[in-house]
Amino acid sequence: MTSDLTTLLTALIHSIQPADHAAMTRARTRQSNLTKPAGALGDLEDLGVRLAGVFGSEQPHPRGVAVIVAAGDHGVARAGVSAYPPEVTPAMVATFLADTPAGPGGAAVNAIARTVGARVHVMDAGVDADLPDHPGLVRAAVRRGTRDLSVEAAMTPQETETLILAGAALARQASEGGADVLIPGEMGIGNTTPAAAITARLLNLDPAQVTGRGTGVDDVRLAHKVAVIRRALARTPAGDPLTVLAEFGGYEIAAMLGVMLQAAALNRAVIVDGFVEGSAALVGVALAPALHDYLFPAGLCAETGHAAQLEHLHLKPMFALNLRLGEGTGGVLAAPLLLAAAATLREMQTFEEAGVPTG
Amino acid sequence: MTSDLTTLLTALIHSIQPADHAAMTRARTRQSNLTKPAGALGDLEDLGVRLAGVFGSEQPHPRGVAVIVAAGDHGVARAGVSAYPPEVTPAMVATFLADTPAGPGGAAVNAIARTVGARVHVMDAGVDADLPDHPGLVRAAVRRGTRDLSVEAAMTPQETETLILAGAALARQASEGGADVLIPGEMGIGNTTPAAAITARLLNLDPAQVTGRGTGVDDVRLAHKVAVIRRALARTPAGDPLTVLAEFGGYEIAAMLGVMLQAAALNRAVIVDGFVEGSAALVGVALAPALHDYLFPAGLCAETGHAAQLEHLHLKPMFALNLRLGEGTGGVLAAPLLLAAAATLREMQTFEEAGVPTG
Repeated sequence: MTSDLTTLLTALIHSIQPADHAAMTRARTRQSNLTKPAGALGDLEDLGVRLAGVFGSEQPHPRGVAVIVAAGDHGVARAGVSAYPPEVTPAMVATFLADTPAGPGGAAVNAIARTVGARVHVMDAGVDADLPDHPGLVRAAVRRGTRDLSVEAAMTPQETETLILAGAALARQASEGGADVLIPGEMGIGNTTPAAAITARLLNLDPAQVTGRGTGVDDVRLAHKVAVIRRALARTPAGDPLTVLAEFGGYEIAAMLGVMLQAAALNRAVIVDGFVEGSAALVGVALAPALHDYLFPAGLCAETGHAAQLEHLHLKPMFALNLRLGEGTGGVLAAPLLLAAAATLREMQTFEEAGVPTG
Repeated sequence: MTSDLTTLLTALIHSIQPADHAAMTRARTRQSNLTKPAGALGDLEDLGVRLAGVFGSEQPHPRGVAVIVAAGDHGVARAGVSAYPPEVTPAMVATFLADTPAGPGGAAVNAIARTVGARVHVMDAGVDADLPDHPGLVRAAVRRGTRDLSVEAAMTPQETETLILAGAALARQASEGGADVLIPGEMGIGNTTPAAAITARLLNLDPAQVTGRGTGVDDVRLAHKVAVIRRALARTPAGDPLTVLAEFGGYEIAAMLGVMLQAAALNRAVIVDGFVEGSAALVGVALAPALHDYLFPAGLCAETGHAAQLEHLHLKPMFALNLRLGEGTGGVLAAPLLLAAAATLREMQTFEEAGVPTG
C-alpha cells in the first residue's frame, strides 16, 4: 500500500506523541497542594492528571465537547446476527437529524448531548440506503454497507484508509469548531459482530469470550453470531491491525478510528464509549501505542468483551450504568466528569492561597 | 416536645408524599416506545422513571441545580478522631466564599459546580469560629460546635429542630431560585464520627462495621475513633430518630436533613452524596419513609459504612469514583446524569414519531 491515502494515514499515525509527562508531574504536585485531603477526589484526580498530560498543562482547560456519530451497515447483518433489521440504520440516521420541538435530533445521543452542551456531528460512513440530503449530514460513504465478513473481506484496504481519513477530517473540523473533547459514536445494525471479531483477533481470545447480545439477541441467535465470527476468523490469517480492520469492517469503525487518531494528534481528549468504539481503540493502539494516553473510557458497558478490551488497554472506566446503546451516549454522559476533573486542577485554590491549616 | 418548632417540623415531615406512581408507569410505557432497544440505556432508564415519579410527569423537566454546603464543628473533634484540626472548618468556609479569578469559591465543590452550572449556597450551621460577614454566607448557627458526643448529648432537641428548619428554609430559597435538583453537602472536621454513630444505631450495626478513615486517619486513630463511637452508643439508649440525631450531632447533619425533607415536600429531587449525607438520609427516611422516593445517591464513596447505608435505603449509586471529600462534590458530579436521564424521556422521539422499524 503506497497510495497517497497510505502516505497521509502513515503521517497521521506518526504524528501522535505520548502525553506530556512533565505536565502530569506538575499536575500531581499541584494536586497535593489543593484545598482537600490527599487523594480525596479519588479517581477524579487521576483523570485530572491524565488531562494535564493531554493538554500539556497542569491546569488543563478543555472547552467544547463534540460527539461524532458514524453510521454504517454490515453485510453480515443479513445473516441474522442482530435483533433488528438493517433498515434501522438509515432510520436512526434520520432520527439523529430530525427536527424536534427540543432541537435538532430525536435520538438518545441528541437528548443527552443537549444537557451537556455537546455538539453532535452525523456521518454517513456507509449506510445501505439512499439517505436524503441534509445540511447536518456529513457524507463519507464509499459503499452501501460492507461485504459479509463471514465469506470475504468486509472492506478493501483503500476503503478502510478512506474512511479512517474521513473520520480524521471530521475530527479536525470539530476541533476547529471548538471541541477539545471528542467522542466517537456509532450506529450500525450488526456492528457488534465485526467488533467482536476484531477484539477476538487482536486480544487472541475465543469468539465466545467476547461476543455478546448486542441490542438484544436471544441464546440461539447468540450461538449463531459466535459461529459466524468463528468462520470469519478461520477465513483470515492473523495480520497487521489495518488488515484486521479491513477484513472484519466496518466503515463506521474505521471512521471512529480516524476520529481517535486525529484527536490524539491534535492533543485533544477522546472519550471512548462502549464495545464497538473499543474495537476501534484496539486497532488504534496497535497502530500508535501513544494513542492510549488520549483515551478516556466512559462506562463499562453491558456488552461481553468490553471488560477485556479495557483491561488490555489498561484503562479504567468512570462508571457502570449498564448502557448498551452506542451512539456515543456513554461518552457524552462521561464528558461532565472530565470537565470537572480539569476544573479542580484549574480553579481550586491551594492551601497556601486559601490559608487553610494542613494538619 | 410541643414547641412551635416541633409543630413546624411535624408538618414538614407529614407533607412528604410518595412519588407519583401513575407518572412512573406512564414513563415506563413511554420508555418502551423510544427510539432505542428496550433497556439499552441501562440504569439511566430507572433514573428517568424515578424522576418521573418525583416531578409527576412522564417527561420530567428538572431545571436548575443547587448544592447547599452546611458547615459545622464537633466537640468530639478535640478527642483526636480526625486527621485534621477543627480550625480547617472555618478556613474551608472562607474558601467556599473566596473571590478567585475563576469566580466565587476556591474549593472543589465550587470548581465542579461551575462546570455544571450549579449554584453553591454556604451555611454556617455551627462552626466553632467568629466567621466574618459575607453576603454569600447564610448564618444559622445556634452554638459554636456541638458538645462531645462521647460524654453528653451533642445537641439539644431544640437546637436539632432549629437546624433542620434552617436547612429546610434554605432549600425553599434555593428552590424558589430555580433549583429543581438539590444537593445537601457538608464540611465539618470530625463529622464522620457522628455519622458513623448514627449509622450504627439506626442500622443496628457494630461501630467497627461502619467507621472509616474519614479524611485519612491511621490505624491507631481509627481504633480510637471506633472506641469513641462505642462509648457514645453505650451512653445513649435506643431512641426515636430525632433523639438519635440530637445525641450524636451534628448541626450540619441536621441542616442537611432539613434540606432533604423540604426538597421532598416540594417534589424536588435530592442527590445524596457520601457517608455523612447518608447518615442524614437514614434519619430522614426513619422520620418520613416516603423521603426515599426523592433520594438519588451519587457515587459509592470510599468511606466504610456507605454501602450499608445504601443497602438499607434500597438505593443504587450511579458511579464509584472513590470520592471521600464531602462538600457535596459527588452530588454535583452526578447531577448531569440525572438531567440526562430526564432529557431522554422528555426529548427522545418514539419509534412511531421517528418512523423507525421495530424489528
